[in-house]
Amino acid sequence: MANITKKVSWSSRGDEPAPAGEGTPLLNGAGGAARSYSRQFSGSGIFQIGRLSTVDLEEDPAPEEESAISRPKEIPHNEKLLSLKYESLDYDNSENQLFLEEERRMSYMGFRCLEISRWVVCALIGILTGLIACFIDIVVENLAGLKYKVIKESILSVAEVCDPHRSQAATVNATWILHNLLLMFRYREPIAAGSGIPQIKCYLNGVKIPRVVRLKTLVVKVCGVICSVAGGLAVGKEGPMIHSGAVVAAGVSQGRSTSLKKDFKIFEYFRRDTEKRDFVSAGAAAGVSAAFGAPVGGVLFSLEEGASFWNQMLTWRIFFASMISTFTLNFFLSIYHNKTGELSNPGLINFGRFDSDYNLYEIPLFICMGALGGLLGALFNVLNYWLTIFRIRYVCTISLFVCFQSQRSYVCPTLQLFCADGEYNSMATAFFNTPERSVRSLFHNPPGSYNPPTLGVFTLTYFFLACWTYGLTVSAGVFIPSLLIGAAWGRLFGIMLAHITPYGSIWADPGKYALIGAAAQLGGIVRMTLSLTVILVEATGNVTYGFPIMLVLMTAKIVGDYFVEGLYDIHIKLQSVPFLHWEAPATSHALTAREVMSSPVTCFNRVEKVGTIVDVLSNTSTNHNGFPVVTRPGKICGLILRSQLIVLLKHKVFVERTRSRLNQRKLQLKDFRDAYPRFPPIQSIHVSQDERECMMDLTEFMNPTPYTVTQETSLPRVFKLFRALGLRHLVVVDSENRVVGLVTRKDLARYHLGKHGLEELQLAQT
Amino acid sequence: MANITKKVSWSSRGDEPAPAGEGTPLLNGAGGAARSYSRQFSGSGIFQIGRLSTVDLEEDPAPEEESAISRPKEIPHNEKLLSLKYESLDYDNSENQLFLEEERRMSYMGFRCLEISRWVVCALIGILTGLIACFIDIVVENLAGLKYKVIKESILSVAEVCDPHRSQAATVNATWILHNLLLMFRYREPIAAGSGIPQIKCYLNGVKIPRVVRLKTLVVKVCGVICSVAGGLAVGKEGPMIHSGAVVAAGVSQGRSTSLKKDFKIFEYFRRDTEKRDFVSAGAAAGVSAAFGAPVGGVLFSLEEGASFWNQMLTWRIFFASMISTFTLNFFLSIYHNKTGELSNPGLINFGRFDSDYNLYEIPLFICMGALGGLLGALFNVLNYWLTIFRIRYVCTISLFVCFQSQRSYVCPTLQLFCADGEYNSMATAFFNTPERSVRSLFHNPPGSYNPPTLGVFTLTYFFLACWTYGLTVSAGVFIPSLLIGAAWGRLFGIMLAHITPYGSIWADPGKYALIGAAAQLGGIVRMTLSLTVILVEATGNVTYGFPIMLVLMTAKIVGDYFVEGLYDIHIKLQSVPFLHWEAPATSHALTAREVMSSPVTCFNRVEKVGTIVDVLSNTSTNHNGFPVVTRPGKICGLILRSQLIVLLKHKVFVERTRSRLNQRKLQLKDFRDAYPRFPPIQSIHVSQDERECMMDLTEFMNPTPYTVTQETSLPRVFKLFRALGLRHLVVVDSENRVVGLVTRKDLARYHLGKHGLEELQLAQT
Repeated sequence: MANITKKVSWSSRGDEPAPAGEGTPLLNGAGGAARSYSRQFSGSGIFQIGRLSTVDLEEDPAPEEESAISRPKEIPHNEKLLSLKYESLDYDNSENQLFLEEERRMSYMGFRCLEISRWVVCALIGILTGLIACFIDIVVENLAGLKYKVIKESILSVAEVCDPHRSQAATVNATWILHNLLLMFRYREPIAAGSGIPQIKCYLNGVKIPRVVRLKTLVVKVCGVICSVAGGLAVGKEGPMIHSGAVVAAGVSQGRSTSLKKDFKIFEYFRRDTEKRDFVSAGAAAGVSAAFGAPVGGVLFSLEEGASFWNQMLTWRIFFASMISTFTLNFFLSIYHNKTGELSNPGLINFGRFDSDYNLYEIPLFICMGALGGLLGALFNVLNYWLTIFRIRYVCTISLFVCFQSQRSYVCPTLQLFCADGEYNSMATAFFNTPERSVRSLFHNPPGSYNPPTLGVFTLTYFFLACWTYGLTVSAGVFIPSLLIGAAWGRLFGIMLAHITPYGSIWADPGKYALIGAAAQLGGIVRMTLSLTVILVEATGNVTYGFPIMLVLMTAKIVGDYFVEGLYDIHIKLQSVPFLHWEAPATSHALTAREVMSSPVTCFNRVEKVGTIVDVLSNTSTNHNGFPVVTRPGKICGLILRSQLIVLLKHKVFVERTRSRLNQRKLQLKDFRDAYPRFPPIQSIHVSQDERECMMDLTEFMNPTPYTVTQETSLPRVFKLFRALGLRHLVVVDSENRVVGLVTRKDLARYHLGKHGLEELQLAQT
Repeated sequence: MANITKKVSWSSRGDEPAPAGEGTPLLNGAGGAARSYSRQFSGSGIFQIGRLSTVDLEEDPAPEEESAISRPKEIPHNEKLLSLKYESLDYDNSENQLFLEEERRMSYMGFRCLEISRWVVCALIGILTGLIACFIDIVVENLAGLKYKVIKESILSVAEVCDPHRSQAATVNATWILHNLLLMFRYREPIAAGSGIPQIKCYLNGVKIPRVVRLKTLVVKVCGVICSVAGGLAVGKEGPMIHSGAVVAAGVSQGRSTSLKKDFKIFEYFRRDTEKRDFVSAGAAAGVSAAFGAPVGGVLFSLEEGASFWNQMLTWRIFFASMISTFTLNFFLSIYHNKTGELSNPGLINFGRFDSDYNLYEIPLFICMGALGGLLGALFNVLNYWLTIFRIRYVCTISLFVCFQSQRSYVCPTLQLFCADGEYNSMATAFFNTPERSVRSLFHNPPGSYNPPTLGVFTLTYFFLACWTYGLTVSAGVFIPSLLIGAAWGRLFGIMLAHITPYGSIWADPGKYALIGAAAQLGGIVRMTLSLTVILVEATGNVTYGFPIMLVLMTAKIVGDYFVEGLYDIHIKLQSVPFLHWEAPATSHALTAREVMSSPVTCFNRVEKVGTIVDVLSNTSTNHNGFPVVTRPGKICGLILRSQLIVLLKHKVFVERTRSRLNQRKLQLKDFRDAYPRFPPIQSIHVSQDERECMMDLTEFMNPTPYTVTQETSLPRVFKLFRALGLRHLVVVDSENRVVGLVTRKDLARYHLGKHGLEELQLAQT
């Protein structure tokens, strides 16, 4: 075997007999064992480059298979690992001959029509996202009203005797039904759990999260969020809106639903990752916009979390979708509230109008609150991290029950508190109403509405409750709970200020401090920057507080980052997702493409034997998705994707070896678009023994101009190219233009800055 | 000659004997004559690639020089030409050995310190920009107050007899002094003329506009804007703030001033185009922020006009600078107004608070106003285009005098109007006060303050006046005049609505329509999108009008784009700047790198003879700035810049041919940074005849991993790579990695979509 490899190998490293999986020197000595199964290819020399340049070698994949099987099958989720199960999306167009021919045939008017249909799709995304938000809002309000009524009646009936256990029983009854519904949904679509923001972040970053933008996910998500919010869990309905918007966008832009088996035969041009991503950005922005009434914030969220290449027209389209979304919500909610034409509900949450101003000398106080928010946020994140680790390691199916239990246990003491103080009304609203209303009353109720001990207890219980809830398998966001916690301790801070400073009661409006506290807490947890500032400013409806909010978010981020990452990043890491950050780690200039790339690489010839292709694709120990195409002397002449090969095999685009090339069946770009995005697995394609002997001409279908770099290119340079262009595969060539390696997302995401400088994550097949 | 070229040529096109300048086939047959001098290289075969791969050929540049000289020297400004006089900036780091060594030596703490100093620089930029805005505001206010006082006194004294000529005489006296001052400044620094926004747009796009970010420009600009605004020209002080912010940023970030000959020896790391651009973005944002009190709008302006690669930390830093800038302005202005701590002046212009709301049925009205704004904006742009063409073609030095004359002629009839109606007070304020106050009174004065004929006349006179003024060689922006025109006809529209509709006087608040009209007019002229929406929303201080403003701006853009481009784009085109838009023209897939590239290319060997380098650099008929470095068999191994070669020659980094390589003098990265950005011309460097025989080893200094593409790469793909990475030179190679061409900014900016499909601009040496 090694002999064959040696005979035909032409890469500079190919002269070594390529021991199993030992590709490139390690950065630090450690981790050698982990690396033995870490590369994308199994060690068997059969699919290495040497083999494939000799086409008519008989296949013989049986031996050495054991080494691939003997690797550990299950590795627990761990932030020190990088999972290989996530595939990447292709944000770089495969400009093959078919594509170029189509583009060249298209007239200027054709491009104008395409542009117009992009705007139409964005309008549809905005309208549908707005309608979904509207639906959620109305249903939650009705359910919460119903629940509140039931609870109020039972509380009133027991108010005299102050028996918390009976009122609690009523709550339990109301929430029990909703939780049961929730449980039902939970099992239908696990991806719909959580806020969905980390998943959308990953999608926009270029990681394919299975089933993240399916219709079924949307339905489960919407029902789930209705049940959990109305059921009184410590969650908000805002985070899930972002996910909903993204799903709507992915569906509408494709002009069909694979779940419903319905193809409208429209927008076929948009059936590829590049176009779809742009629409998903618009959907996410529309979601934020509907949730917070913050169209600009939505655009910035999309850009901050996702897009790396800023394009004026794209941004403007995203903004259009956002505006339409908030307008639709506003319009239908004002009809629902019988105030047609007043347009007073731009978002699901509305912070209400802040008329008070701030003074210069309050700025240091705000900065202190920012630091406090950063600390509390870091604490929240660390607790949530441990909880998540615990949940992953041990049984997580009982979590909902435990959550339900905790819900019971906090209702009990709090209700007692109310009764003792005789002022249960405002606090009871905070607990039993929707969290949005609670936030608003914390912002706007006149001074004296809440007494400090109640606020303290509320902060504490809600802090742990929210921490417990996030990461549970329920559809729920962390935005509103964070705001609520922050508003509570912020108001407490304001009340204390009013007490201890002279004239404090004049300038220290507790509502103002509740707002700053809410910003600090949210910033400390999620660590978003510009977009969060704008979202909060838009939700308050005036720009006066822009400067203090920015200061507070900045302080919270600096303080929080000192301890631990943001909540979304923690969850992305725990899922071992190969996420690419903005820049390569600062100290990575010492690394070059040579050290980073995977090598050797499985290559195909321009005209390849069908049997060879089938064998490479069916080899379970590898999961290559891109294959360089080489000419006879081994020079790179293109790049072809697994998905393209599968479509070619499915349509049997073969030529018999003796016949001329002309007989090959003509494939259209449409055939690839129809198969997108769910390409069948190789196992479902049957290729007869005769067909295996045929040849396949890849010239028309491969991308003839893949981006390449040389081996000496530094990691930051490779990273920049990869990130700026949204690549999936980057071919590394030597000075003769011969393929020597392939850089994929996983090769770049491996490196990160740890406490001891540059660290390398291990790769795991799970 | 042709023989030599042939002997060593290895490019696929090199086999042709390369007729003078005839590089690539033209897209359309026309323009062949223009192309004969259009390429960057003269036709003389001497510096073609063939020559340089044979090192010890004696130099002989004399013959064929005439052909280069015989080309036309002066070509008038024309939008059908692309000027070659503009150089590009290097937004892609030259990662040579020196740079990589420095980066590798740097510890993690070193990177942290760099990061902190970036924040410090941004804070400084914000503070200084805010202070400049504050200075301009206070001086203008005092001067305008003085002028107003003089005029008022003379008007009052003649009010009885209503003699417009005497009041006019007083105005003339006051403005005359200021105009004289203005004229004085004008001749000092012509680049300081105009609003500066097109120049900053070009800079951020990657075009080097001479002297655009110099200290002298800033001083002249500030004095100029003060004089023209206080002098009563139809101009605003907002546009120039953006330029001022950019100059401040370019100065502060370099830690030295070449104008003042002072080097603080700090921030040396930032002395390259990549870093400087980031700071200039921050400066422009800080300028917008100070001008309009719109920090978010400032960030979006920078991103929309400039940056192509979005980076979260960079954006956040830009936002920080913006916030600091508006805060500084606010703080010092409130001290100046004796209201310390109240912070009520976030920007130079403040639209005041809009409390009225809009109704659903007004939206169609807003859209109509948007369309009207688009029409009027297009008219404005077309008129201004003709005027500019006229000014370029004929004497433009008399322009200021004519402007002054026109100023006189409009004062006369308007003053008469006031007297006739007996209500000169509000209109007089509009004319004699600063335009910012006029805008505010149009927005907020109660219904009935202005009568329709006055508004009509005001709109008309101001429209033509502003159109005349923009593009004059005075420091002035178009923002405020546009707002003023729009507010005037918007208010007129509102008054008419109130008259002709039932209950119109209840809902048709003329102030609201003035705002919408202002947005429509401004949008119709400048055609900015997201950033303008946010700027206007932030200037109004509440987000209620976000949706209508967006609709109006969108309509104005669509309608206006149908007729003509935005004002800034027109002026950029008239300057024949090689500006790269967001994407390649839609129908350009038919073009490949082969057709676009310049070829043949002047290359150097890795170890090159000094004489050859000096000759290539001193050849006046070429202005190459980047040279591929090739190995003996002609394969690409690096890219070196003219500026780097000049520094090497200046420091005499030579080795005698007989000695070993070790004797070469060691250069530090510091030597390159000290020379940045004003590298001396080659003529100032003396190289003796002995030195000419020495060799220069370029290995350490060249960028060893330039980005390359193959000849078959489509234009959109080349464009995307170029734009996303901010390249200056992109090497085109064949399948053997041999240099066959070079793509520069001019090669890409040439193509644009015209009425008849893809058109190609001609290149001109002016």
